Amino acid sequence: MKTVNIGMVGYGFMGRTHSNAFRRVVNFFDVPCLPVLKTVCARNAERAEAFAAQWGYESSVTDWRALVDSKDIDLIDIASPNDTHAEIAIAAAKAGKMVMCEKPLGRNAAESEAMVNAVEAAGVPNMVWYNYRRVPAVTLAKNLVDEGRLGRIFHYRAKFLQDWTISSDLPQGGEGLWRLDVNVAGSGVTGDLLAHCIDTAMWLNGGIAEVTATTETFIKSRTHSLTGKVEPVGIDDASLFLARFQNGSLATFEATRYARGHKALYTLEINGENASIMWDLHDLHRLQYYDHRDEGRVRGWRSLHITDRDHPYMSHWWVPGLQIGYEHTFVHQAADFLTAAWEGKSAPPTFRDGLLTDDVTGAVLESSAKRSWVKVRRRQHDA
Amino acid sequence: MKTVNIGMVGYGFMGRTHSNAFRRVVNFFDVPCLPVLKTVCARNAERAEAFAAQWGYESSVTDWRALVDSKDIDLIDIASPNDTHAEIAIAAAKAGKMVMCEKPLGRNAAESEAMVNAVEAAGVPNMVWYNYRRVPAVTLAKNLVDEGRLGRIFHYRAKFLQDWTISSDLPQGGEGLWRLDVNVAGSGVTGDLLAHCIDTAMWLNGGIAEVTATTETFIKSRTHSLTGKVEPVGIDDASLFLARFQNGSLATFEATRYARGHKALYTLEINGENASIMWDLHDLHRLQYYDHRDEGRVRGWRSLHITDRDHPYMSHWWVPGLQIGYEHTFVHQAADFLTAAWEGKSAPPTFRDGLLTDDVTGAVLESSAKRSWVKVRRRQHDA
Amino acid sequence: MKTVNIGMVGYGFMGRTHSNAFRRVVNFFDVPCLPVLKTVCARNAERAEAFAAQWGYESSVTDWRALVDSKDIDLIDIASPNDTHAEIAIAAAKAGKMVMCEKPLGRNAAESEAMVNAVEAAGVPNMVWYNYRRVPAVTLAKNLVDEGRLGRIFHYRAKFLQDWTISSDLPQGGEGLWRLDVNVAGSGVTGDLLAHCIDTAMWLNGGIAEVTATTETFIKSRTHSLTGKVEPVGIDDASLFLARFQNGSLATFEATRYARGHKALYTLEINGENASIMWDLHDLHRLQYYDHRDEGRVRGWRSLHITDRDHPYMSHWWVPGLQIGYEHTFVHQAADFLTAAWEGKSAPPTFRDGLLTDDVTGAVLESSAKRSWVKVRRRQHDA
Amino acid sequence: MKTVNIGMVGYGFMGRTHSNAFRRVVNFFDVPCLPVLKTVCARNAERAEAFAAQWGYESSVTDWRALVDSKDIDLIDIASPNDTHAEIAIAAAKAGKMVMCEKPLGRNAAESEAMVNAVEAAGVPNMVWYNYRRVPAVTLAKNLVDEGRLGRIFHYRAKFLQDWTISSDLPQGGEGLWRLDVNVAGSGVTGDLLAHCIDTAMWLNGGIAEVTATTETFIKSRTHSLTGKVEPVGIDDASLFLARFQNGSLATFEATRYARGHKALYTLEINGENASIMWDLHDLHRLQYYDHRDEGRVRGWRSLHITDRDHPYMSHWWVPGLQIGYEHTFVHQAADFLTAAWEGKSAPPTFRDGLLTDDVTGAVLESSAKRSWVKVRRRQHDA
Repeated sequence: MKTVNIGMVGYGFMGRTHSNAFRRVVNFFDVPCLPVLKTVCARNAERAEAFAAQWGYESSVTDWRALVDSKDIDLIDIASPNDTHAEIAIAAAKAGKMVMCEKPLGRNAAESEAMVNAVEAAGVPNMVWYNYRRVPAVTLAKNLVDEGRLGRIFHYRAKFLQDWTISSDLPQGGEGLWRLDVNVAGSGVTGDLLAHCIDTAMWLNGGIAEVTATTETFIKSRTHSLTGKVEPVGIDDASLFLARFQNGSLATFEATRYARGHKALYTLEINGENASIMWDLHDLHRLQYYDHRDEGRVRGWRSLHITDRDHPYMSHWWVPGLQIGYEHTFVHQAADFLTAAWEGKSAPPTFRDGLLTDDVTGAVLESSAKRSWVKVRRRQHDA
Repeated sequence: MKTVNIGMVGYGFMGRTHSNAFRRVVNFFDVPCLPVLKTVCARNAERAEAFAAQWGYESSVTDWRALVDSKDIDLIDIASPNDTHAEIAIAAAKAGKMVMCEKPLGRNAAESEAMVNAVEAAGVPNMVWYNYRRVPAVTLAKNLVDEGRLGRIFHYRAKFLQDWTISSDLPQGGEGLWRLDVNVAGSGVTGDLLAHCIDTAMWLNGGIAEVTATTETFIKSRTHSLTGKVEPVGIDDASLFLARFQNGSLATFEATRYARGHKALYTLEINGENASIMWDLHDLHRLQYYDHRDEGRVRGWRSLHITDRDHPYMSHWWVPGLQIGYEHTFVHQAADFLTAAWEGKSAPPTFRDGLLTDDVTGAVLESSAKRSWVKVRRRQHDA
Repeated sequence: MKTVNIGMVGYGFMGRTHSNAFRRVVNFFDVPCLPVLKTVCARNAERAEAFAAQWGYESSVTDWRALVDSKDIDLIDIASPNDTHAEIAIAAAKAGKMVMCEKPLGRNAAESEAMVNAVEAAGVPNMVWYNYRRVPAVTLAKNLVDEGRLGRIFHYRAKFLQDWTISSDLPQGGEGLWRLDVNVAGSGVTGDLLAHCIDTAMWLNGGIAEVTATTETFIKSRTHSLTGKVEPVGIDDASLFLARFQNGSLATFEATRYARGHKALYTLEINGENASIMWDLHDLHRLQYYDHRDEGRVRGWRSLHITDRDHPYMSHWWVPGLQIGYEHTFVHQAADFLTAAWEGKSAPPTFRDGLLTDDVTGAVLESSAKRSWVKVRRRQHDA
Repeated sequence: MKTVNIGMVGYGFMGRTHSNAFRRVVNFFDVPCLPVLKTVCARNAERAEAFAAQWGYESSVTDWRALVDSKDIDLIDIASPNDTHAEIAIAAAKAGKMVMCEKPLGRNAAESEAMVNAVEAAGVPNMVWYNYRRVPAVTLAKNLVDEGRLGRIFHYRAKFLQDWTISSDLPQGGEGLWRLDVNVAGSGVTGDLLAHCIDTAMWLNGGIAEVTATTETFIKSRTHSLTGKVEPVGIDDASLFLARFQNGSLATFEATRYARGHKALYTLEINGENASIMWDLHDLHRLQYYDHRDEGRVRGWRSLHITDRDHPYMSHWWVPGLQIGYEHTFVHQAADFLTAAWEGKSAPPTFRDGLLTDDVTGAVLESSAKRSWVKVRRRQHDA
């Protein structure tokens, strides 16, 4: 089997999920090419080596340019902090490599636009790791919407609730905490959590036309772990917005790291004229479905246990009733990308899709600053 | 409107639920006759008077024979402890009164048989207050079964779990505690809780053919609140049995007052070839329904919120989405009884139905004592 | 026992819930005075008589002024459509009657302000029937908040979802449909559903400082049932807003009658530094509670079954595990009002509380029209 | 790192779960030795080769004796049908190999006893793949029980419900269907599903003293896929029993493949004097916990989302809130076995533990045949 040699940038949480995806995909999916974990790159040589050993990379380097320059690397996968995405992706595209990038694409739409231009100019297959599209339950939701089962859409609502930054003792910045450093992350929950909600929402329900938003930073200053000084916090701790989709439906969106009791509660709901759908990440193997066309006396929300062979992706795993988890979404994404890339194509969400999401997160931040409705810059896809 | 004068025996928990039923029924149901709370009977004159005042009875007495002898009383409703049921019911029947009796009918099948003979000889309308048949969700379950939606039945399972007698400090017997005194109650959870499960089960799934059971008294002796002495406990604290129904289906039944965390968790499930149903008393306004004939990808357990106008009894109450509670089951039973009785008929479950349940509880206790399978004495109705 | 003679205006859905409350309260609560269902008023004489018979009113009239003028009436309870509230309440107050009024208080804050001025000038006990405060689970939530268990509040979210007006065949206006007629109702879901959410929210979390909102009328014209003509729809079908509370917490609010699958899904959640609470009307007998101070390994959302004797109001009803329903909230409200009124006091929510809610709904409608943030006019109570 | 060379027998559902476990374990756990997928054995050479390619085995063979005879193999893992377990395990033990065996150990206790004798005589590390002990939620349940949080145990209940054999068109025997052939499987749901329930139950609650059981074969004859003839079905389709544990607690157990709507619903519950625990396989990442020592007003079932770092095994996976699935239980088991085996020890459940479970399944089948209570042969461990 032909191989695709992977150069991985980053070894944190996302470096692990991506590496795992490439390791597992061949055991469960008939991909047209064999992904090879060739080289991992991280600034700290010792950690890069340890990571390479743990995951079976053939080698490690400390400068990502080594990957870009190497003839042995076919695909560069960017799993490093947000402030590194644009530079690496653009260089990789120019070098003719396939490029995968952890979300959000850039720290802002301007960075993302440059990245899109680079991959499109180079004509290289590309993808952003918005992994939740490939939770089987979410993919099924997409299929049900595409089949027209919901009819005219009236409402969409999504939220992503966490509680891990409530303590004021938590430092900002540094190892494992760069998501709290606005210079590295670009924004707080808007780019980190809302971006997931927006990507799925536009996939299911088409483009967002305009928003009114508010954000808040509950803890105004924190010790910076790199400088040791107490510094103002630049990120948004919470971000809420109302939206109108291009199709006329209304929406509420919310993300926060201050919702006590929720670890990673991403929930979405879509209400159509004929049917409605709900899903949440804390029970990701279930989909709630309500069909008004059911006979009245036995009409109710159906709790679908998404483990049957005719559910998306599930024929590749175990037997009915046995659930898969979070990490599998990345395996699905790897399978789809390798299949598309082998034919020279990108797999959705492409960098351009990622840019459209960044347009919305940008509008959210602008709306919050201006305290007014803001129209989303680019027209989105229709659902 | 013609009236039905009620003589109520008992003023405890069940005296309240029955009185409430007669008070409410005329506001919500078009019954053919007006129930009048005529006289309440209780041994303690002061309490009887207070209860009469609270519920609007016209008078109170301390001897139930006064009700039997009175020309003003049309219906005698027995809500007093189990050891009084047989004597009162038989006397009431002989006096030509309609008779309603709190469950279980007698302390054992022998008592119950005498009661059945009395009401049948007298030809008086009669009913046992097995109220859970008239939870709208349970009535809907019965309708779905009767419509043949489930197909051949393979399994039935029911349990009734409580935790209120775990403390060894709890005395046995006396005010509010007669359920712990075997002489008064007849048995422990077998007659108190399992009897409910059995009544519903036979209504939904036909007669029970044979059982193998085990019972246990976890706390062997308790202070008797009347004597003040520590005495052996005669009731069963827990009662479990396996059963075979006449239709060939298999069942597990369990009742206990030692299941920490459950206050009144009566659950039932029935599995048929084509569909299954689940219900539980802690969310009594919901019914879970699974239909295998649904399209595969969107097949799942439906959580029916039993508050729509086309659900049993619900058109009499509020608007869709607004739930009713426990007490309403008694109102439904009162409505059905008054309607039937006005035409001289009994409403199910009749005394004879109650006797069939006592046959099963008797078989359970016998099986536990003998440590063997026991066949139920009388053939039950077929489902 | 002294009596309070009630004159009821209206015989619809709310006329039934209020009448039931006064009928039941004496059986379950030790109120200091006996409510007497004296006279019901409705424009249609025949229906008024039928309602009087059904609920045991001594008489019926067709002009509410007869109630105001009668010396026999102590309390006027307004359960008629919104456009009648102000005129009746003001007249009743001037006549020195106690006044209870179904929510929302007026069709807008101007009407409500006049009503507040009238009852305060007359010094008569008054209350608005925002019944959800007295769901035992919601009252417990209030107690937990008041005890300081949640710590600093970061987030509040509430929604009220229905689906009963999705069909475009549904006429507007007329019997049972006045909620769709803007002239009668004042607004659509903003005054009907959001008002409930706002009343509870301010009770639990203090005043709302400012809002940004959007509303939508999905079906633009409907046949008017009174005129028979197709006319533009004046009400809002959906209403969404973001809010900032006076205490600095952020909120999302949403109400709609176009959320397929939800009959009356009022949900609320409040997230504090130390604990969080969730509740929903479809399982109103439960409260979800999360306490971060629990030991880590066994920390999770607790599903409280609000049926124990130490839960608010529940010692008056049945035994642990047995749930009550929607209608009981009105009984609780009647009990609290009669107790307060007997001492010449109002019970919350008073007309003034109702006005504060109308200030917020007014700000919501203004924000939607202006497409901008709007500050709430009057400073609210602090939590 | 030192290596452990694995010889895998079988390539079906269990061959996949075991292979996956050995492939993943080194990425997530610091095991003392590197498992090497050396050789897979299957009767069909083509399929064995394909499986080897899919999972990265170095070679494949068609006779398991080749594994036993090979000096290159350190560990023999038996994932083939039940009728092959004993012969292979005994030969492997005699050859001094470590032995892992899919459950149930043998087709009956006699076979299992010979297997235990063989591994104990040879002194080789051994384990049975009862994987559900290592669902993190179940492991946490064990920890909570061991810490004494539940107090005296009163009740245990477990069931394992499936619905995949309801159709009478399903053949018995042959590829993928050997579980329906009594000669291969040994029994039906008793050995396949109840055995899981029993293994966990004895681990959590100590030995089972005696049982009364009933079994049923609902579909009496099926086409045998190997012979093409309609033949009597020898397996039990459903198996139910009541039990008394050595510690005096009572239990209900049930397994069936005829419970419409349930794919793999393994549920367990344990009720103690002070606390109770519930778990089910359809939401395996949650544990329900009730502690009576909580303050009354806020006492309720806690839904623990078992994804935190202080939950068993979870620090090895992702971040809080992100769930793992079914397959991970095998990874945990591989990690524990490799760690123990490296020091020459077995990891639980050992072959001897597996035998104790077979004693109970044997007693169940005997009880069903004799229609009487049966004492379990060997005394079990105490909890």
